[in-house]
Amino acid sequence: MRKQEISVEALTKGILKGDNAILAKAITLLESANPNHFEKANAVIENCLSQPNNSVRLGVTGVPGVGKSSFIETLGTTLTSMGKKVAVLAVDPTSSLSKGSILGDKTRMQTLSKDPNAFIRPSPSGNSLGGVAQKTRESIMLCEAAGYDVILVETVGVGQSEIAVHSMVDFFLLLKLSGAGDELQGIKRGIMEMADAIAINKADGTNLERAKLAETEFSRALHLYPPKKNGWVPKVMRCSATENTGIKEIWELVEQFVAQNKENGHFEKNRKTQNKNWFLQTVDEHIKQFFHQRESFKMEQDKMLNAIDNNEISPFYAAKLLLDKITKEL
Amino acid sequence: MRKQEISVEALTKGILKGDNAILAKAITLLESANPNHFEKANAVIENCLSQPNNSVRLGVTGVPGVGKSSFIETLGTTLTSMGKKVAVLAVDPTSSLSKGSILGDKTRMQTLSKDPNAFIRPSPSGNSLGGVAQKTRESIMLCEAAGYDVILVETVGVGQSEIAVHSMVDFFLLLKLSGAGDELQGIKRGIMEMADAIAINKADGTNLERAKLAETEFSRALHLYPPKKNGWVPKVMRCSATENTGIKEIWELVEQFVAQNKENGHFEKNRKTQNKNWFLQTVDEHIKQFFHQRESFKMEQDKMLNAIDNNEISPFYAAKLLLDKITKEL
Repeated sequence: MRKQEISVEALTKGILKGDNAILAKAITLLESANPNHFEKANAVIENCLSQPNNSVRLGVTGVPGVGKSSFIETLGTTLTSMGKKVAVLAVDPTSSLSKGSILGDKTRMQTLSKDPNAFIRPSPSGNSLGGVAQKTRESIMLCEAAGYDVILVETVGVGQSEIAVHSMVDFFLLLKLSGAGDELQGIKRGIMEMADAIAINKADGTNLERAKLAETEFSRALHLYPPKKNGWVPKVMRCSATENTGIKEIWELVEQFVAQNKENGHFEKNRKTQNKNWFLQTVDEHIKQFFHQRESFKMEQDKMLNAIDNNEISPFYAAKLLLDKITKEL
Repeated sequence: MRKQEISVEALTKGILKGDNAILAKAITLLESANPNHFEKANAVIENCLSQPNNSVRLGVTGVPGVGKSSFIETLGTTLTSMGKKVAVLAVDPTSSLSKGSILGDKTRMQTLSKDPNAFIRPSPSGNSLGGVAQKTRESIMLCEAAGYDVILVETVGVGQSEIAVHSMVDFFLLLKLSGAGDELQGIKRGIMEMADAIAINKADGTNLERAKLAETEFSRALHLYPPKKNGWVPKVMRCSATENTGIKEIWELVEQFVAQNKENGHFEKNRKTQNKNWFLQTVDEHIKQFFHQRESFKMEQDKMLNAIDNNEISPFYAAKLLLDKITKEL
């Protein structure tokens, strides 16, 4: 028996009502590689975008082992207990490898995943980081339409994915451990420059003294960077996700940041810049789909793949022939 | 005075003659964002692709600080002294940040950069890792047409870029340090699975004993992975780039790998798979260019960007309108 397909109208209505099951279905649709789903997902997104919202988008990054999941679990639970609705999304560049992702299974967030005011979604899979990031951006919009106030976007501290997440959030938080290896210094520099705050996680027990030291060191290091255009001075804080200390203070900092940036106009300005980049990326995605959805394109592409397999043509020349043929047909 | 433009014919001829200055110019052309350069670069690549070659493409990865540059310097010099011509290319996902790249300045390879049988090219900059990787793939082709026998493709050990480099090389080498932090275990697993060999670098002086231990540990770890389809059993070796020990042995291993895989047909099979992926990526790049080169596309796109800036339209809907308008014109 075929599963009954849900209509664009039903999806839109369900999302706007805040129905988590429908929200999850809509995100599955937009993550799908099926071209029919692409059209449908676009219609849902368009319907949802007209809704005004007052959300805060918070990016959370840090190397594997820094405790991102427990941090998000504790922060998320703190926020829902304040009456907020919290969505957790992820951008994981490794998830496109079939071998599983660094960020792993979101069911690890045991308390938050049972919370009716929380919505947790693992990283979409995809062939490219760009594709994965694109889908996460669209998921943010759907979550906001569903009434989520705080969108937490988790990523892993290894380079390019930070840039992607930084380009879709209002506030970018870097989690660190005290005394962790300097192996990643080269990367850290670029990522530290993007951070609006650094939180030294696992600042508890025998670790507390080292965490205080790290706090001082990072504060000093941050002063070496040029000031941010929005006038914000990045802060270094300590927290312990397992003992739930310092977490509320981090959220207060985010709120202070949002208030200050709304006041001086940089909040709106940043979102506009992000919107323009989102537009450019969406255009490129649509361009691609415009060709890939054509029957004749698929047939010609398969022919060329065969010819390459038989060593009859170079891949580069095959691409040229395919495009020449298809563009003449338009 | 305008610089005189060099013709497709002159570029092709220069490359096939092995003229490094012309090769460098051609690569600059293919890395250019200028649409006129795109056409010209494509013509040069097509001309060069008909040349048969017997190259070995070797990917080298490892986290910052593992000593990739000195390893490549020593390996490269060893290879040129054996009469081989060596090209060094790089894929660096961080170089798209204006703040500089992890892989840094290739002039650090002081000996190799003066070697007439070596050609060193830093990572192209680009908006996306996909774009950067695409250009590196095309640079490989040009280097091979210029007579380079060994193409070393360097990347930084942080995730997605490894997958890109793995998809364009014959042999994938992972450099490790003994006793380095386990912070990256999560990533290491995926990358270790791609590796055809692991080399413990800086196995010298007081480090030697720890390197031997690491060698045993990694060998044991590698045995836990399922066997590779080509029948190759990944090896763990030790080397010191600064003392030039173990480097020749690594090259002998690569040669053994190539011989074995040519024998059982997997070398050719792997290159064909890579060619098909290259074709698919090239098609998508050409599709994008097909639109972006149109005058009316640029005008409409700018209009939409303005409208987004004035909050008159949502980025997602703007993308739809732009595509609708442009595809009607075709």
